[in-house]
Amino acid sequence: MLFAPASNPDVLAKLPRSGPDAVVIDLEDAVPADGKVAARQHAREVGEALATELPTLAVCVRVNAVSSDWFADDVRDALGPWLAGVVVPKLDTRADVETVALALERAGVGDVAVIAGIETVAGVARVDEVLQPPVRMAYFGAEDFIADIGGVRTEDGTEVLYARSRVAVAARLAGVLAIDQIVPGFSDDDRFLADARAGRAIGYRGKMCIHPAQVPLANQVFSPSEEEQDWARRLLAAYKQAELEGEGAIVFEGQMVDEPMARRARALLGTGG
Amino acid sequence: MLFAPASNPDVLAKLPRSGPDAVVIDLEDAVPADGKVAARQHAREVGEALATELPTLAVCVRVNAVSSDWFADDVRDALGPWLAGVVVPKLDTRADVETVALALERAGVGDVAVIAGIETVAGVARVDEVLQPPVRMAYFGAEDFIADIGGVRTEDGTEVLYARSRVAVAARLAGVLAIDQIVPGFSDDDRFLADARAGRAIGYRGKMCIHPAQVPLANQVFSPSEEEQDWARRLLAAYKQAELEGEGAIVFEGQMVDEPMARRARALLGTGG
Amino acid sequence: MLFAPASNPDVLAKLPRSGPDAVVIDLEDAVPADGKVAARQHAREVGEALATELPTLAVCVRVNAVSSDWFADDVRDALGPWLAGVVVPKLDTRADVETVALALERAGVGDVAVIAGIETVAGVARVDEVLQPPVRMAYFGAEDFIADIGGVRTEDGTEVLYARSRVAVAARLAGVLAIDQIVPGFSDDDRFLADARAGRAIGYRGKMCIHPAQVPLANQVFSPSEEEQDWARRLLAAYKQAELEGEGAIVFEGQMVDEPMARRARALLGTGG
Repeated sequence: MLFAPASNPDVLAKLPRSGPDAVVIDLEDAVPADGKVAARQHAREVGEALATELPTLAVCVRVNAVSSDWFADDVRDALGPWLAGVVVPKLDTRADVETVALALERAGVGDVAVIAGIETVAGVARVDEVLQPPVRMAYFGAEDFIADIGGVRTEDGTEVLYARSRVAVAARLAGVLAIDQIVPGFSDDDRFLADARAGRAIGYRGKMCIHPAQVPLANQVFSPSEEEQDWARRLLAAYKQAELEGEGAIVFEGQMVDEPMARRARALLGTGG
Repeated sequence: MLFAPASNPDVLAKLPRSGPDAVVIDLEDAVPADGKVAARQHAREVGEALATELPTLAVCVRVNAVSSDWFADDVRDALGPWLAGVVVPKLDTRADVETVALALERAGVGDVAVIAGIETVAGVARVDEVLQPPVRMAYFGAEDFIADIGGVRTEDGTEVLYARSRVAVAARLAGVLAIDQIVPGFSDDDRFLADARAGRAIGYRGKMCIHPAQVPLANQVFSPSEEEQDWARRLLAAYKQAELEGEGAIVFEGQMVDEPMARRARALLGTGG
Repeated sequence: MLFAPASNPDVLAKLPRSGPDAVVIDLEDAVPADGKVAARQHAREVGEALATELPTLAVCVRVNAVSSDWFADDVRDALGPWLAGVVVPKLDTRADVETVALALERAGVGDVAVIAGIETVAGVARVDEVLQPPVRMAYFGAEDFIADIGGVRTEDGTEVLYARSRVAVAARLAGVLAIDQIVPGFSDDDRFLADARAGRAIGYRGKMCIHPAQVPLANQVFSPSEEEQDWARRLLAAYKQAELEGEGAIVFEGQMVDEPMARRARALLGTGG
């Protein structure tokens, strides 16, 4: 899920090049106050063009927070029926979500998917009530969360493990797809890969990218590798053989394998879990 | 707490050899669908025999999940008054626990201890309502939890720290004894020891073992070492001396020691906390 | 926040020397049962003297837990209008907080700030209900928490990450200032610094110290360094320049910088968040 500021239409038009599953035209943090009006027009024009040209690409817009002065105009002027989803940052309460649902309905885009930004202390604390319909996806915003709590971002990310894990659990419980935090240093591939692997281990299904160079790295981590697929196929073959012989647990490459591990192998191959 | 598949009566009979505190005859993951009927009979026969021969050994049976087709027959055919506890996997809600209590009562084993498996996202999210009577113990199932959330198990286990910690806190609050996650790689002693030490640090009181070789390792970690006992005795002697001299806090081997540390030392020696 | 036993008036009088923001005269863990009466008198006398001499120093008293036999006498005999705050350990429930509020009011110090000790499993599990007015600050007590849950303290502190993070989140949500856990080994500066940095990263605003040597280390970690301030000034200058040029996101020293990062930089300089 690749983000770019709506203030720069040339950059927006090039977003699909790095191969993201979704692009987000951002009206929030990356657009200064006096650029919001022009940015809405860019969002609408480039968004519609991208969505028309590339029907398999999910084209989304991130509006400003519900509590901001810009939210109402964002919804009125930047969205349209071409949208795959609307990203709403800093959702803190159930009431915020209801405000969003009503505003979208009034703007004639009431059936668009809402992607909730969980990135404040309040949002994390009340994540179970926020992740309800029409929310269909959610991201965890580590930078904003740590700014809100007054903490410090570190390389290993221990300071957000609690919040990042809690959001993943709440998302799974609500049947909402969870997208992992950004990595601001876009030229440090190793750090991005490590952060993405950690997010995937916790249960996230994708990654927010703030630079096209991060997209292939995210796709690499969140798609099963050849090696993982081979392992899964070998394990399932051995497990099936054991079942035919009346055994439900086997030793496979030094590990005790039973139904939960077989389930993970099937999930990895996309053959049901 | 040593697990073995109920499908293999020879293995079951040898379970006590490695010195576990409890054995669990497993009807769930490790037994294939077409082996459940025979497995129930093995569970009942070997379970009763073990319980009769070894009155200090806690003999338990793990039934299939409440939502499965096998649960009702497991309860009817595999349990008996010789049981120390019935292990119920994948408990998700208070309603699940009530279903279990009712089924046990109808089967005439209503006063057996229930050992709850917390190993789904729903179970972790609702752990406070699940860990109520008749639940007297609980285990955290990392493999199933990560399969459910769609994550990946890693060596350091960071991806389950939130869930594993939350279950330990809920267990202590409910007065329920907490048993820690399995380690699938049963020939990697160092990994088992590190994982067991981490579990003990978090507040777990024992470990699920899936191979007899893991039992002495678990016993080693969850029993206080000679070194720890010596440390606790020295600390308490110094602390008592200080109290006689009217001091409540002392410097002991470079650390400031007061009542909480003394309490931990007493707990370690089993002389009250 | 520097703690010292109320049993030793000479030590108490020297507390301000190391430069703490607050001193806590401790009637709880560090004072043995038969020293409580004398300790209350020391607390009152030295406390009042310190508060009078040093009006910018926050002078506090830690009473014994609400459930103890000493609490009522502590409140009656050790407090006074000179107090900046009363530290109450082991708060477990909303009812405990109400008992404290009532007792303080009856003792004529009803408007003093309450500093809540969250250091039991119950306190952590119910932290949201405990951190309500008149609670204005809170500390997380790792030693007591781990003693209560039956765990083990380790050097990296992974075993308390869940509880320590949860308390920081609850504190921020309640508008309560969070003070981080002690480090018992007072001669290990590196460990103290690492522990303090981890606490600050999570969102804590200060540190409990149990030895004067820890105070300058805590002040060093919890005050922004020259380096951090320089970074924040450079970042904000570049960000302002970008805004003038109509851009809301910039590349600054290899990182994508937008509003959340600018907010963290402003917070670091104390110029509003």
